[in-house]
Amino acid sequence: MGWEEQVRRVVPYIPGEQPKQKGIIKLNTNECPYPPSPLVKQKAAEFQTDDLRLYPDPDASLLVKALADYYGVKEDHIFTGVGSDDVLAMSFLTFFNSDKPILFPDITYSFYDVWAELFHIPYRTPALDEAFRLKKEDYLCENGGIIIPNPNAPTGLSEELDTIEAIVAGNPDSLVIIDEAYVDFGGKSAIGLVDKYENLLVVRTFSKSRAMAGIRIGFAVGSSRVIRYLKDVKFSFNSYTMNAPSIAWGAASILDDGYFKETVGKIINTRERVKKELRELGFTFPDSRSNFLFVSHKSIPAAELFEALKQEGIYVRYFNKPRINNYLRITIGTDEEMDRLLTFLNNMAVPR
Amino acid sequence: MGWEEQVRRVVPYIPGEQPKQKGIIKLNTNECPYPPSPLVKQKAAEFQTDDLRLYPDPDASLLVKALADYYGVKEDHIFTGVGSDDVLAMSFLTFFNSDKPILFPDITYSFYDVWAELFHIPYRTPALDEAFRLKKEDYLCENGGIIIPNPNAPTGLSEELDTIEAIVAGNPDSLVIIDEAYVDFGGKSAIGLVDKYENLLVVRTFSKSRAMAGIRIGFAVGSSRVIRYLKDVKFSFNSYTMNAPSIAWGAASILDDGYFKETVGKIINTRERVKKELRELGFTFPDSRSNFLFVSHKSIPAAELFEALKQEGIYVRYFNKPRINNYLRITIGTDEEMDRLLTFLNNMAVPR
Repeated sequence: MGWEEQVRRVVPYIPGEQPKQKGIIKLNTNECPYPPSPLVKQKAAEFQTDDLRLYPDPDASLLVKALADYYGVKEDHIFTGVGSDDVLAMSFLTFFNSDKPILFPDITYSFYDVWAELFHIPYRTPALDEAFRLKKEDYLCENGGIIIPNPNAPTGLSEELDTIEAIVAGNPDSLVIIDEAYVDFGGKSAIGLVDKYENLLVVRTFSKSRAMAGIRIGFAVGSSRVIRYLKDVKFSFNSYTMNAPSIAWGAASILDDGYFKETVGKIINTRERVKKELRELGFTFPDSRSNFLFVSHKSIPAAELFEALKQEGIYVRYFNKPRINNYLRITIGTDEEMDRLLTFLNNMAVPR
Repeated sequence: MGWEEQVRRVVPYIPGEQPKQKGIIKLNTNECPYPPSPLVKQKAAEFQTDDLRLYPDPDASLLVKALADYYGVKEDHIFTGVGSDDVLAMSFLTFFNSDKPILFPDITYSFYDVWAELFHIPYRTPALDEAFRLKKEDYLCENGGIIIPNPNAPTGLSEELDTIEAIVAGNPDSLVIIDEAYVDFGGKSAIGLVDKYENLLVVRTFSKSRAMAGIRIGFAVGSSRVIRYLKDVKFSFNSYTMNAPSIAWGAASILDDGYFKETVGKIINTRERVKKELRELGFTFPDSRSNFLFVSHKSIPAAELFEALKQEGIYVRYFNKPRINNYLRITIGTDEEMDRLLTFLNNMAVPR
C-alpha cells in the first residue's frame, strides 16, 4: 500500500545473541561476570512500587548528583540516558547535522554507521593502521563531527590521552565524542579535558564495569553548553527516559566505590592471566585495556573456533567483516569460566 | 565556537511540574491516584538484582507475550518502548518521512508539534470545532501521515470509532496513529481495527490506567508489517530500551486484570461525581472519557484559579495557548483529594 512509500528504511544493528538456555558460558556481549554492588540489592529491597504511580524525576537528579560528585564536575555537565546507546543516538541526532561527513575508525563499534544511516548523516571511516592503531592525522581534516571509542571495540586498544586531546583541540568546528564504554578496565579517560574543550563529549555506560546492563544506564560528561543542547533534543524526544528503579539503583552503584574497584580489579587480573595462557596456545591479540580480548589463532580460522566453542556452550563474538574476520572477541568472565574456555581450547589440540 | 553551527536547535516539550515537596495534591500530570497492582509489588520483592549484570531481553518477550494474550493479537503485532512518548517519537521517525504535512488537531497533546519540529516534519493542525470535536473531513485530504489522540488531551473528549475508521480507511497512503493514552477510562479502542487496516497503529501507555508512570512503558499495536518497520528503526536507535524491572513488572501488571478494572472503575466513578459537583459550582467542561477534566469557570479566569490552587498546594495544569487559555486540566485523584479541591473552590466563594 501507499503508506509504505513514506517509511524510513534501515538495516538495524544486530546485537550479540542473548541465549536463554541455562548452563552456557556467555562471553559474547561484554557483560560483567560479577553481580552489581550489594548496595544496589539493598536499594532494590527497599524499593516502593507504590510510588511507581508517579512520573519519575525527569532530571534524574539523584543519579546525576551522584555522578557529578564522583567525577568532580557540576551537575549541569552530566547527561543521562537509557544505556550509552541512547546517549549516543541522541548525540548523533543533536550534533551531527552538517553536509560534511562525520569520522570514525573503519574497525569500531558497529552501531556508529547504523546511527549515521538512520539519521542520514554522511560518514567516512579512516582505516586503522595494521596494528589497529588510530592515525591522528586522519581526524585533522574538515568533517561534520567525530566519534572515537577509547578503548576501541572490538580491538580493546586504548589510545593515549595526548592523541585524543590533539584531535579535540584540532577540531574547534566539530563536536568530538569519545565513547569510553570500556575505559574503567585500564584506559585513560578524557573527562578531565571537558573543562578545557567545549567541543568534547565523553560517553560512559553502567553496562560493563558497573555490572548493570539489565538496568540500562548511560551518561555523558561535557561542557554545560554541550549538555544543554543535548538535553533540549532529549526533552524534544522523551521527557522521562530514566525510570524510577534505574535512578535509585544507579545512584547506589556509584556510591559503592570500594565494590566497584574490587570488581574491576578482579576482571583486569583475570584478563592479564588469560592473555598469557592464550599466547602459549598460539593466539595473538592487541594489548586489550578492556573487559574483552580480540584474538586470532596462528592456524585455526576464527569462524571454525567460533562454531566449535558454540557447540560446547561457550558463546563468544565473531564479526564476519573485512580485516577482522579471523578474530574472535572474547569477554573476560570469571576465572572458572575462563578456565573452561582455556581447557576446551587446549583439548581441541590447538597446534602450537 | 564553530561546532555550535551544526547543532540541531529545538524548543523542547515542557512536561508538567514534578514538585518534590510532600503534602501537596498533585492533579497536574494525569497520574493514577492508586498504586500499581499488588502483583507488581510481589514481582519487585522477588526481583534478583544479581541478574542485572546481563543485558535485558531485547525483545521484551515476557511483556510482549502478556500484552499479545491480553489483547488477543499475535506477538508480532506488538511494539514496546520507554513510555508512549518513546513509542510515538519512534513512530514519527519511522513513518512520517514525506514532504507532505502530517495532520493533527490544533488542540491536542503538545508533544506532537515538538516531534515534528525535532525531525523536520512539516505539519498542519486542522481546528477542532467550537465543541472541541474533530471534523472528519479535515483528515480526508493529501497528507504525510496522521496522528489523532482518542480520547483527546487536554479536552478529554472521545470520538466515535466510526469516525476513526473512516479516517483510517480514507488514507491508504498514510500511516494513521491513534494515541489511546486515556482510552481505558471510557473511550473506544481502535485495536480491533488493526486486523482490517494495515496503515493503522494504536499507541498505549502504562502511565495512566496502569498506575506505572514511574516505570516507563508504552506500547503499540499494529499490523505485523507496521511493527516490523518500527522495530527496524528502534533497533537502529537502541537495541535495549526496556530494562529488566520494566519487563518483569509490566508483565505482572497485565496479568492482574481484576485489580486493573477495579482501579479504573474507581476513577471513573470519582470523575462522574466530580463532574456533577463542578457543574453546580459554575464550571463547564467537555464530557471527559479520560482521567482528567478540562474545565472553565463562567466568571473566574483560569489563570487566576490556577494560581490560587497552587498557593493552596493543589497542582493542576494550565496551558497559556490560544482557544484554551481559560481552561484548567484537572486530573482525577482519590475521592479525598477531589473533596479537598471542591471544598477549596467552594470556600473561594465561587460566584454561581
